[in-house]
Amino acid sequence: MHSLERLFKPKNVVIFKVSRGISFFIEGFRRQGFDIGKLYLISKREKEFFGLKCYNSIDEIPEDIIDLLILSVRRELLIQSLEDILSKKKVNFVHIFTAGTGEFDDLGIEIERKLKELLDKFKHTRGIGPNCMGLYSPRGKTAYYSSFPVERGNIGLIFQSGDLHSKMIKFGSRRYNLRFSIGISIGNCIDIQISEILEYLNKDFETDVISIYFEGISPFHRNEGKKLFNVLKKMKKPVLFMRGGRTIRGQIAVLTHTGAIATRNDIWGAIYKQTPIIEVPPSIDELIDYNFLFSSYISRYRELKKNIVYPTNKRALVILWSGGFGILATDTLIELGLELPYFEGDALEKLKEIYPIRVGSLSNPFDLPWLTHQKIFVEVCKSAINGKFDLIIVETDAWKDMEGERFKGYYNNLLELREYVESLNKIFIIILHQYPSESQAKFNQLLLSDKFIVYPTIEAAAKSFLKLYEFGKKLTRINQEDN
Amino acid sequence: MHSLERLFKPKNVVIFKVSRGISFFIEGFRRQGFDIGKLYLISKREKEFFGLKCYNSIDEIPEDIIDLLILSVRRELLIQSLEDILSKKKVNFVHIFTAGTGEFDDLGIEIERKLKELLDKFKHTRGIGPNCMGLYSPRGKTAYYSSFPVERGNIGLIFQSGDLHSKMIKFGSRRYNLRFSIGISIGNCIDIQISEILEYLNKDFETDVISIYFEGISPFHRNEGKKLFNVLKKMKKPVLFMRGGRTIRGQIAVLTHTGAIATRNDIWGAIYKQTPIIEVPPSIDELIDYNFLFSSYISRYRELKKNIVYPTNKRALVILWSGGFGILATDTLIELGLELPYFEGDALEKLKEIYPIRVGSLSNPFDLPWLTHQKIFVEVCKSAINGKFDLIIVETDAWKDMEGERFKGYYNNLLELREYVESLNKIFIIILHQYPSESQAKFNQLLLSDKFIVYPTIEAAAKSFLKLYEFGKKLTRINQEDN
Repeated sequence: MHSLERLFKPKNVVIFKVSRGISFFIEGFRRQGFDIGKLYLISKREKEFFGLKCYNSIDEIPEDIIDLLILSVRRELLIQSLEDILSKKKVNFVHIFTAGTGEFDDLGIEIERKLKELLDKFKHTRGIGPNCMGLYSPRGKTAYYSSFPVERGNIGLIFQSGDLHSKMIKFGSRRYNLRFSIGISIGNCIDIQISEILEYLNKDFETDVISIYFEGISPFHRNEGKKLFNVLKKMKKPVLFMRGGRTIRGQIAVLTHTGAIATRNDIWGAIYKQTPIIEVPPSIDELIDYNFLFSSYISRYRELKKNIVYPTNKRALVILWSGGFGILATDTLIELGLELPYFEGDALEKLKEIYPIRVGSLSNPFDLPWLTHQKIFVEVCKSAINGKFDLIIVETDAWKDMEGERFKGYYNNLLELREYVESLNKIFIIILHQYPSESQAKFNQLLLSDKFIVYPTIEAAAKSFLKLYEFGKKLTRINQEDN
Repeated sequence: MHSLERLFKPKNVVIFKVSRGISFFIEGFRRQGFDIGKLYLISKREKEFFGLKCYNSIDEIPEDIIDLLILSVRRELLIQSLEDILSKKKVNFVHIFTAGTGEFDDLGIEIERKLKELLDKFKHTRGIGPNCMGLYSPRGKTAYYSSFPVERGNIGLIFQSGDLHSKMIKFGSRRYNLRFSIGISIGNCIDIQISEILEYLNKDFETDVISIYFEGISPFHRNEGKKLFNVLKKMKKPVLFMRGGRTIRGQIAVLTHTGAIATRNDIWGAIYKQTPIIEVPPSIDELIDYNFLFSSYISRYRELKKNIVYPTNKRALVILWSGGFGILATDTLIELGLELPYFEGDALEKLKEIYPIRVGSLSNPFDLPWLTHQKIFVEVCKSAINGKFDLIIVETDAWKDMEGERFKGYYNNLLELREYVESLNKIFIIILHQYPSESQAKFNQLLLSDKFIVYPTIEAAAKSFLKLYEFGKKLTRINQEDN
């Protein structure tokens, strides 16, 4: 068994000490279906909390070995409390929730130093944190918020910010139905390091894509930089890497957030070049967008039990819902670096033989909205695509009448077109513009439930595709170097 | 009376010929409350259409002067139909809806040439189009879609794409409650030019900010380029200018869209420098974002009957909902070009005298989410702001309980803080992250109805602010040159 296995699948959990302020933990465990008989709360004040019995002290817990201890005490009591518990029970993992440590002031740094000493002394006990939200592990039925999905997915998260970790899961699951294998808010990294989790996720069968939010190295683990670099170099799965503190001003903010040692941009430039990892700008929204495509794309190959074919070209065909948007789409895609081959001369005439347009366009973007519910729409699109494009973007909009024949014809066309595009190992993305409307929300949900990749903007679609393409190019280069 | 007045406030409208495919016009007029007795439909086939009488021919229309004729016939019948009508009735304005003209093929170009000849002959008749959706003018109770708001606003639109014009109004009104003074989808510009509408809007009392979507100059109006430049130079109101065909590839797409003559990037670079207009990238979403801030900001000064003070500095204070997001916000704002002065030393101690933090941060970003519903939150924020910032960004999130005391305290703090910031002529923006959720939607609607400026991302907020700042800088420079 891997040494971190029990962290993600604890047989029992102790919360020391429970209080109203951290009741979300209990709600999270409940929602995931964790065996509540194995969730032990410690409180001197309360007899019962949220329907669960409270124990007066660690001695009363009827377990010899504690898999996961969630430690939530004032920082002044942190060292003494932990030392007391560790001297009484064998603890496999401690999640140090307490904040106000290394990121806060000199006393906090001193507390972290003592914490490290203590964990070095009790070698069998490994710690995450301090200053972190901890674990989301649907396989182990653990989560710190009840809003996190119970279903398991293929996205792994390692975040040096509980806030961003929570946002990623909450926004991602609601916007795109993202699902996760393991998420860890790791905080100031006084014991377990990012590189360790990364090695675990690299081998984890359920995890297909890994996202990291990184702020810096703990001042107590100065060799972690080199370790992390070595692990990143060896990664076989895509790693989407978002770094906080890209600017000097951002690094000042990092100091008050995790107290991590800032790392230099030129070093990171070299790391991005020398490893297969994908740089993500400082935007949780973009990170969510990218995860959506990587996760969906790899899932499909996994279901088909086929080797993944990443795009190594970037030729896009845009099929419009209506006209003028095509000009903006064209400028946007070209400015972002995609190619838009277009049909003219004989190639155009061949398409016109299938469907003789009178208005609109069969050039690229395609502009034939009146046709989208007819069978001939698929025919003309298939003939156009036929191995010449890597990315097919279909713009759509909400339908008032989703019961009528027109919509059914249209929706079947979307399904058929996607099947065709995917049979060619190419990428099929739908753009559904975002605005508050019942019919928009209903259509969006239908598309997501049928596993379409749906973005609200052409920018999000193009940028996500380009990240997949970047990973494809990196893999090709690495494989060439290996041969 | 201005020569274009009747275009935006027609006393009567004739649709020639009405058909099922263009019933949206009738629904649009109905929804706006246009006097249906003055909406005349012509059809040889139908006696009645959508509850309205149909006239057999133009001769039967009981009006001597037609203010607005909407011409919707096949392109082959266009010239003959229009000539026939103009020889029988005095027509003030004709909106040529017919597409498949100059943008489509050589025959279409020939039709445009004849159309121009015809309108040159009937000098009192002015035309918009062809290949356009036409008018949205709530003051004249006209709209081509029933989904357009009835309420009047301060945003004027001149768009060379009916699709983008419709998207702007539909998405803008639903996302941010945007309201418009006049919108015109002007198409291939065979008669009335963008510069003419622009001059009208520059004088129009209701219009505070103008957005243009431009594709190019009609080949039949080669001097429009110079005219447009001269009008743009004189503009006193902000003009948000989005150009389709920024890339060579985009210009190829423009050719099949409006058949306009492509214009060169270097020329546009010079125009952006020499006029007060604001360049907008090829994104309808960004254009909508920018309009939200300009429209809201100027509205407030209008209500106060004060001269507008545009920002000429760009120092931002970020007040977080929760921690890690602040690092991304910092990097994003700095990378976009804003400044984030922060509190340290004596300045920080002064803030700590008001509220002695134990965790979190009073540096910038502010990180004190537990405090946001208490009175002291406003005190510490006010003391920090006090003339030292141009932009205050407050991150928030949905509330489950919007009835409780905690929310009330929080919401009152937002109102009080905004009032304070606005009293300093500074800008107050709320970030409410976007994801499907009832409580999110409810909170968003509350904020919008109370006229808060609310964006879904920090990028949208920062970019919108920077456009306002850019306009402020341009105005300062122009005023200096004028003196």
